Amino acid sequence: MSTEAAFITALRALATSSAARQLADDAAVLEIGGTRLVLTMDSIVEGVHFLSADPPETVAWKLVATNVSDLAAKGAVPRGCLLSYALSTADEWNAAFLRGLRLACETYSIPLLGGDTVRQPNGSARSFSLVALGEPAAGVEVPSRGGACVGDELWVTGSLGDAGLGLGILRGEHKAQSADRDTLVSRYRTPMPDVSLGVALAPLVHAMMDVSDGVLIDAGRLAAASGLAAVVELDRLPLSDEYMSSLGCTLTSCLFAATAGDDYCLLFAAPPRIRDDLIAAAKEQAQKLHCIGRITEGEGLVLLFDGQIIPPPARLGYEH
Amino acid sequence: MSTEAAFITALRALATSSAARQLADDAAVLEIGGTRLVLTMDSIVEGVHFLSADPPETVAWKLVATNVSDLAAKGAVPRGCLLSYALSTADEWNAAFLRGLRLACETYSIPLLGGDTVRQPNGSARSFSLVALGEPAAGVEVPSRGGACVGDELWVTGSLGDAGLGLGILRGEHKAQSADRDTLVSRYRTPMPDVSLGVALAPLVHAMMDVSDGVLIDAGRLAAASGLAAVVELDRLPLSDEYMSSLGCTLTSCLFAATAGDDYCLLFAAPPRIRDDLIAAAKEQAQKLHCIGRITEGEGLVLLFDGQIIPPPARLGYEH
Repeated sequence: MSTEAAFITALRALATSSAARQLADDAAVLEIGGTRLVLTMDSIVEGVHFLSADPPETVAWKLVATNVSDLAAKGAVPRGCLLSYALSTADEWNAAFLRGLRLACETYSIPLLGGDTVRQPNGSARSFSLVALGEPAAGVEVPSRGGACVGDELWVTGSLGDAGLGLGILRGEHKAQSADRDTLVSRYRTPMPDVSLGVALAPLVHAMMDVSDGVLIDAGRLAAASGLAAVVELDRLPLSDEYMSSLGCTLTSCLFAATAGDDYCLLFAAPPRIRDDLIAAAKEQAQKLHCIGRITEGEGLVLLFDGQIIPPPARLGYEH
Repeated sequence: MSTEAAFITALRALATSSAARQLADDAAVLEIGGTRLVLTMDSIVEGVHFLSADPPETVAWKLVATNVSDLAAKGAVPRGCLLSYALSTADEWNAAFLRGLRLACETYSIPLLGGDTVRQPNGSARSFSLVALGEPAAGVEVPSRGGACVGDELWVTGSLGDAGLGLGILRGEHKAQSADRDTLVSRYRTPMPDVSLGVALAPLVHAMMDVSDGVLIDAGRLAAASGLAAVVELDRLPLSDEYMSSLGCTLTSCLFAATAGDDYCLLFAAPPRIRDDLIAAAKEQAQKLHCIGRITEGEGLVLLFDGQIIPPPARLGYEH
């Protein structure tokens, strides 16, 4: 067992409160007063979750957006956040981070409530944590990852792979036309979770989560949490024009999009009979849905491309 | 203005929600679902807030205890926490941290609800964040730092300086008899905030906070938040037997105790007429209170020792 897997197993043994959802969901759900509070905490570390050369405005944006993405996946409206900030003496960097923080907090209507500012010793990678609190709509069950049923269809709410390709471009591993380059890089640096869409879908779905580590690894997690298997049709993954003009829509391209991570769209399972309701709910939010597979008996992932079974790649996504 | 002061000023301009208490309190107070939630987030960084050689069990304990101390200062009962954990490959270190985390969470009845596990690049200082949520008693106002009135007495709930001396011993800057050494070091490594005492005092006090950075700097903050001045009588600071047998109770010793920080007891202001109620409330929790000064018109700190005014030291406490 890897160090992280062993650590998380040990941590789960500690997190026995039902509110913790066995640390197997995007967020905790705490009943308090007459309501429920959705709680999530994501950290980002320089050199791991963002590049040293990323503009600090976008680092702040990403920190807020990744947490808001977890709230959206639970159908929760943001109510507040707390920030732990590793302060360096780079005044301009700090000021730029704050500009990005302000923009993200205003965009997602998530007030900054508090936090902590700490010094880091010289030479340490910058490290920031954010906790976001959200409130689900009254009477609506907060969807977990584990509610999918046999026969459910699997859907995603946005194009996949753009952020991964953007990161590849920044690392010099991929190329794109200059018009596409900016779009793809911004998909990596400034993900745009859609809270309203999550809130609209929450009452309809059987299971929901956000796609943060790659749709294959995340679909596998959703299926595993539901005690079932997932079939993903790689040729049905939504790819953007910018993505396709750089990488095409071959099997290799689809596998890259399915495993790259950082998409921050929603992945959910719902029965085929409510397909029209789902599409209508998304349309009201000016969004499109993309059916990419289904839930079946069994366990693990089955990948299809052009109707053929494809062996799963060694790496299903980003493990951290 | 220092980098940190400038940063926090800019952060305050962003935190306009009343729940944020202008980032000038120990915690945020969010009204939600017919109740109020007290929210605090403290981070600890290796080499800044703990020593590399500190046992990992005690690092975890301190992380939980410093957050619980903030809840206690707001009279809030712990309801849950979320952890951001910087995972290294030091499996035994990780396992020991988890043992300390379990002990602290059980001791303070604070369930672990979620969080995040992140990798840090090699060479980075270990860095951990915790968010704690607490709920105040129904109908009791959550005490702020800013409610003190002219004529209030200033009280602390525990001995001061032990933790600072313990740190000094670990750093080789101070010495103590071996019987005292362990006690003083444990006051540094495993602070023991008292939630029940905070809950008992909250309905009675005008203002309350925890002493984390040194009683002088913290009394100055309480007075400033109240728009008033504080008089601290250094010869009335409670010093433990272990502390006095090492450092005595001279002016130098009292100044060290007043500025060392890491005490994690409570500091509060209350009118003299309720003195008996305060002492009775503490006695019910098997605790003693120590009156160390009073609140007056004006601004800043006035220090007395043996009835004489003492010029304030250049360093009033730990600024971070």
